[in-house]
Amino acid sequence: MPKPGRRPSQRIAVIGGVASGPAAAAAAKRADQQAEVVLFEQGGYMSYGACEMPYYLGDQIADADTLLVVKPDVFEQTRSVKVQLRHRVEAIAPQANRLTVTDLQAGETRTERFDKFILATGSAAIRPDFVHAHDPNVFVLRTLRHAIDLKAFLDAHPVQHAVIVGGGYVGLEVAEALRRLDKRVTVLAPHGLLAAMAEEAQQHALERVLADHHVQLRRERATALLRTADGHVRAVRTDQQEVIGCDLVIVAVGVRPRTELAEAAGLKIGVSGGIAVDSQMRTNLPNVWACGDGAELQRIIDDAPVNVSLAAVSYRTAKVAGKNAARRGRGTPRTFGGVSLASAVRVFGFEVAALGLRLQEAQDAGYDAFATDIQHVSRVKIYPGAKPVWVRLVAERGKGRILGAAIAGEEGAALRLNALVPLVRSKGTVYDLAEQDFIYTPPLAPMHDPLTVAARRAVRALSP
Amino acid sequence: MPKPGRRPSQRIAVIGGVASGPAAAAAAKRADQQAEVVLFEQGGYMSYGACEMPYYLGDQIADADTLLVVKPDVFEQTRSVKVQLRHRVEAIAPQANRLTVTDLQAGETRTERFDKFILATGSAAIRPDFVHAHDPNVFVLRTLRHAIDLKAFLDAHPVQHAVIVGGGYVGLEVAEALRRLDKRVTVLAPHGLLAAMAEEAQQHALERVLADHHVQLRRERATALLRTADGHVRAVRTDQQEVIGCDLVIVAVGVRPRTELAEAAGLKIGVSGGIAVDSQMRTNLPNVWACGDGAELQRIIDDAPVNVSLAAVSYRTAKVAGKNAARRGRGTPRTFGGVSLASAVRVFGFEVAALGLRLQEAQDAGYDAFATDIQHVSRVKIYPGAKPVWVRLVAERGKGRILGAAIAGEEGAALRLNALVPLVRSKGTVYDLAEQDFIYTPPLAPMHDPLTVAARRAVRALSP
Repeated sequence: MPKPGRRPSQRIAVIGGVASGPAAAAAAKRADQQAEVVLFEQGGYMSYGACEMPYYLGDQIADADTLLVVKPDVFEQTRSVKVQLRHRVEAIAPQANRLTVTDLQAGETRTERFDKFILATGSAAIRPDFVHAHDPNVFVLRTLRHAIDLKAFLDAHPVQHAVIVGGGYVGLEVAEALRRLDKRVTVLAPHGLLAAMAEEAQQHALERVLADHHVQLRRERATALLRTADGHVRAVRTDQQEVIGCDLVIVAVGVRPRTELAEAAGLKIGVSGGIAVDSQMRTNLPNVWACGDGAELQRIIDDAPVNVSLAAVSYRTAKVAGKNAARRGRGTPRTFGGVSLASAVRVFGFEVAALGLRLQEAQDAGYDAFATDIQHVSRVKIYPGAKPVWVRLVAERGKGRILGAAIAGEEGAALRLNALVPLVRSKGTVYDLAEQDFIYTPPLAPMHDPLTVAARRAVRALSP
Repeated sequence: MPKPGRRPSQRIAVIGGVASGPAAAAAAKRADQQAEVVLFEQGGYMSYGACEMPYYLGDQIADADTLLVVKPDVFEQTRSVKVQLRHRVEAIAPQANRLTVTDLQAGETRTERFDKFILATGSAAIRPDFVHAHDPNVFVLRTLRHAIDLKAFLDAHPVQHAVIVGGGYVGLEVAEALRRLDKRVTVLAPHGLLAAMAEEAQQHALERVLADHHVQLRRERATALLRTADGHVRAVRTDQQEVIGCDLVIVAVGVRPRTELAEAAGLKIGVSGGIAVDSQMRTNLPNVWACGDGAELQRIIDDAPVNVSLAAVSYRTAKVAGKNAARRGRGTPRTFGGVSLASAVRVFGFEVAALGLRLQEAQDAGYDAFATDIQHVSRVKIYPGAKPVWVRLVAERGKGRILGAAIAGEEGAALRLNALVPLVRSKGTVYDLAEQDFIYTPPLAPMHDPLTVAARRAVRALSP
């Protein structure tokens, strides 16, 4: 905070305290030490590792406190940012430099004056219509509050059978956590497992892993929840008219950007649903920036607008937004260069990672795209412990530009994807990929890396 | 082989059968089905996995036969290449299209006519002067014959204490193998462990791993072997005048390209000691190509000539040499684009990988280079099993171009290096590296990947 008695150079409001908000606030303060930076968070927690929450549920991380990356008082002290937890921002009026906020504890609403605003409002879990606001045994997993409540529920109730609605990475991570707690688990995944990442052979391999770990998988869509007289959900009905008895339901069908505040303030919303920003993370209003999961970004393949929930990406956009919001015309503005969409998940020891576009997405985007699928090994085949690795490359016919990829396997799958990130960012081709002299040592990598094998196959497909 | 009665379009001799020879022969035959391709190998084995030999010694790979990638008769049949094992090529006279070869089994020397020659003579283990040709309990590990002989020695003798001369990757892999067999092991490494790859903190971490596995490490140079009256080596003397009693000595002090045949034939040898070739793997004689560990290659950092022993690289050069040797002016010649020098090793579960230049090498090459060293984690720190990962980046001041890197750690170290291969090949900078949105998922990667952390540190060092 500025020295007492000294007037701040500017007042910057950061709205949202989960991940990108604190990063943006710290970056703003670092860029202008004389600024007063205030962080508003409607919840009771800030700066926590949302990606780690499934492991807290599954007792791999024992204490919810360890999920806090930095505690509010430490953050205030070390970053000189004022933190206002349990403060819900009701509205911002950027042209009038006004912010209306309710102190949820005191129950008081007030208006404050700010020069600049950074929206880090993130995303919210999607709740299908059949979920009621106060269903006692239905949960989503988006905030730390959700995680703590769900954990408390598991501790307090002898849950027998949990139904997980959704076969994406959150659903599967929660499935693993609940199996660790020895619960019966059914996953409803109408489009298959990790449909946004994995191709068919990879999905099948993952299905076998789930079966090995006694997770029931159904390719059915949840359509309704059946309740007892006291309002507890006792079963899930599916589009196949199955009724699956259960005493816990986790809904993990995706997220949507939280843009209510932005929309009400007259900010432009992009086609992806996220808050529209330029490469400096500026919105259409001159004193408002946005960052994190709530903002619209460009995918680097084709600059198409996307809205994503990727923590490391959020952090990068936050640094850009925070610095640019504070710079007052000094220095060079930072820019954010778009996302490769690299993401990864590990479930029951099985890894899936993907980046760029899936084949269908690439074709929908107008590319003359094709896919090459191979199965190879994680280590030298005769070395003990070698496991299958599946690679899909999506590339453009003609030049062979890499448009996307997915890698899956029990080991050495996800980290291999990182080698594709620089190639995709530099518009590299499968010919380029085939030339990379990746490491080879029997316990870690076969002589022909799975990526190399896939690239050679794709090259042959291009010039038979 | 060409159809009986039909005259071959050309006769191509490939000399050397370990790794690059068979690959070159197969590529040549594929490029010209009418050619007669003959592969000469002086040893009794061809096409085997030399990198896998330490794991055969340590009983992780049970049978020497499994080290054979393809058996001679299968190779002959499937590749239509004639294989001549136990045939030592005594001389080639390319201008006269002559090759002189001794059938070691029959004891007969003959001269054959060939249109073209591909030298895949590889490299040989360096034997210091103090090693005698017939020391019964002193071994190197370069050929499958060596591995089988050493394994037989271990089976036949109650070895108590082995001294390994050399702290490079072969020495360490053999150390691990012998510890698996419960032998006492001392490693003599005057320059430290993996001095060609790891930086100091990485070496220290590796030293702790060796200590944990009861491997004695001495920073001493072997200077002499002490022998009993019957010629058995009973001790190693060091430059510190220590005398280390032992009943087995493994010498692993590096390799040198085998160029005797090339030199005698009038082929140019490069400054690296390897056979000089252009990007098409052509020597200075128009009908001779070279490939594999015996050839001189260019490192892609600065195009400096290097001689390396990297199996996957050998394979690539072999494909280029084989195809170009056979093409007879048709099609486009293949080219080889140089080496990133990416290599990796895992010892007692500890991984070390490196590429490009070490700091000293970079400075010696004339770069205004600096190094950035960081220690980070393999997974999210609070996720069970997270291990330290050490990263060194070597970069050029000013632009920040990445010149080299080394990564070490118990997990997730070596495969991370692959992400640097495309960056180094495209002359990428630490700024580029800092922008890569690598994967993040708690069980596999922290939010800020070790590579990202290192890149950000290097960026700060460039613009403080």
